[in-house]
Amino acid sequence: MGAALALAARGLGRVWPNPAVGCIIVAGGRMVGRGRTADGGRPHAETVALAQAGEAARGATAYVTLEPCAHHGVTPPCAESLIAAGVARVVIAQRDPDPRVDGGGVARLRAAGTEVIEGVREAEARGLQAGFLSRIQRGRPLLTLKLATTLDGRIATASGESQWITGPFARAHVHGQRACHDAVMVGAGTARADDPQLTVRGQGDVPQPVRIVLSRRLDVPQDSALTRSTAIAPVWMLHGPHAAPARRAALEATGVICQPVPSLGGGLDLAAALGLLAERGLSRVYCEGGGTLAAALLQAGLVDRLDCYTAGAAIGAEGIPALGAMGLSALADAPRLTLKEMRRLGPDVLTRWASDH
Amino acid sequence: MGAALALAARGLGRVWPNPAVGCIIVAGGRMVGRGRTADGGRPHAETVALAQAGEAARGATAYVTLEPCAHHGVTPPCAESLIAAGVARVVIAQRDPDPRVDGGGVARLRAAGTEVIEGVREAEARGLQAGFLSRIQRGRPLLTLKLATTLDGRIATASGESQWITGPFARAHVHGQRACHDAVMVGAGTARADDPQLTVRGQGDVPQPVRIVLSRRLDVPQDSALTRSTAIAPVWMLHGPHAAPARRAALEATGVICQPVPSLGGGLDLAAALGLLAERGLSRVYCEGGGTLAAALLQAGLVDRLDCYTAGAAIGAEGIPALGAMGLSALADAPRLTLKEMRRLGPDVLTRWASDH
Repeated sequence: MGAALALAARGLGRVWPNPAVGCIIVAGGRMVGRGRTADGGRPHAETVALAQAGEAARGATAYVTLEPCAHHGVTPPCAESLIAAGVARVVIAQRDPDPRVDGGGVARLRAAGTEVIEGVREAEARGLQAGFLSRIQRGRPLLTLKLATTLDGRIATASGESQWITGPFARAHVHGQRACHDAVMVGAGTARADDPQLTVRGQGDVPQPVRIVLSRRLDVPQDSALTRSTAIAPVWMLHGPHAAPARRAALEATGVICQPVPSLGGGLDLAAALGLLAERGLSRVYCEGGGTLAAALLQAGLVDRLDCYTAGAAIGAEGIPALGAMGLSALADAPRLTLKEMRRLGPDVLTRWASDH
Repeated sequence: MGAALALAARGLGRVWPNPAVGCIIVAGGRMVGRGRTADGGRPHAETVALAQAGEAARGATAYVTLEPCAHHGVTPPCAESLIAAGVARVVIAQRDPDPRVDGGGVARLRAAGTEVIEGVREAEARGLQAGFLSRIQRGRPLLTLKLATTLDGRIATASGESQWITGPFARAHVHGQRACHDAVMVGAGTARADDPQLTVRGQGDVPQPVRIVLSRRLDVPQDSALTRSTAIAPVWMLHGPHAAPARRAALEATGVICQPVPSLGGGLDLAAALGLLAERGLSRVYCEGGGTLAAALLQAGLVDRLDCYTAGAAIGAEGIPALGAMGLSALADAPRLTLKEMRRLGPDVLTRWASDH
């Protein structure tokens, strides 16, 4: 199961709208098949592993990180494939909460006389599948917020200079994080100020994440690193109901996909925006700011994980803060996160935090 | 020498104006004497260890973390005491750069026929004696700046609420840091806003650090936790040349020691202030803010070490920043520090940084 989990992890950020699953088939003490959900979500892990195992699958044990599907979708259900291949035993890390499966795969296997063992290394599998579970169970993607700041929490000087606060190790790590998320998201202010491309670079030939810009009024440049690269990876812009149709049309002409979401209190309804992203199949979203969007997401309780890259530098109070105004009336109302990991990245520090919700 | 260094470390914050020295005397493979510079600076480590060893010191080896003194001060020089006791060999971690010693102790020992070995675990000894070395060689104390912030670099909400951002483990660690510094320093704003006592609490019966307030105009309350506790530990207030004499007199009436330092660019001349503290014998100063003082010290290149306690909380841009305005024109001008240590303190993180100067 450890090998299956490691395989599954390699699919993160590459397999949406499907979950990243790993499957290992063992016969006579030998691994005869291995597979993960392929880039783009198909074929499923079991299909890949069974094809590799061939006749060796008969009487074998299959280790799968997620309950095999039982519903007829684009491909036949994996539970049926395992039965047809004559697999004798299926070990599962966790059930698939998707209402189209949710125990159906296990029931189908058992009805066919296949032995099923459930819950093996389930906690690890749940951590790995946090994005998929969030999309299915909460109707929104897992949201990771990235902050890259000085010791005093600044992301740029007063004049907007931010290259580079953190060093090359931290920046490479960020590209790795973009690669294992389905989408990278920024606010309109960051899109205007930094003209970012938001692609994965320096990580080899990997699928590119969807690039998402939240802009209530669609007041972002029509000619930008994003609009010029829609052929490399999709750009989705979520805007308010009253964004100018001419702006929308101009952006759509560049290949950008525009999508309205409701407004809420002067900004976009962020919960609704994330709900829309989940509907579109995204399970892991990586938010790179800026401060206004980051603060709004935190305040709305929509941040699941927070990665802080901290450089040993100080900019002072005129610098641009990592988080915008949050309107807290008391310290007790401040969002609190739990430390999960800390590590050195060259001259910088990465601390990783998680929300308790 | 390891044991001598560990003994020496126990004297940090307790022995000013003298250096924290450790001494171990070994005869026939047995430790026959051990001592460290006593609280308040006297007796010296060698005196304590020799007294413990008695006749066993004859022919023994003494391990001392700093070159034994050669000058007649309040007590006779330690080099003479070691010779008189008949110690055959003296192992020294580092020379004493104090111009009254600086090789004189070694020369005196050798002249008397005592074998001297120098430079044993010198790097560790230098780290331990960084405060003393700074005072002697740079004419200012080693300055450690403490910041205790949220993930976004805030030390309080907009309304000034700061209790508690960090948890009890971090706060206990701060008290431990106060205890191993000669003095704790804050700016006038913090003295007014927080009415701090700045004593060491919860660390047992330890000597209290000098409490220092920097206040150009001495505009601090005459009745405060500081002025009411001058019997427990000294309070020194460094003020500008134009502070009102009446204020000064009123503060002195409470037992506060007031001392003028020159002004510089609208504030106090911080380099001159630290020079004065070194002249008074302080070698390790722990600055606990606030943001104005912290930013000014960093900008003036006077921060040697920076301890960041970071809590997993977010306050947002209205919160009070850890560092005040620094007036940087370019990111390249931002002070840069090097990561030395990172550790978890309950729910919080401590990262320790050092300036390269």
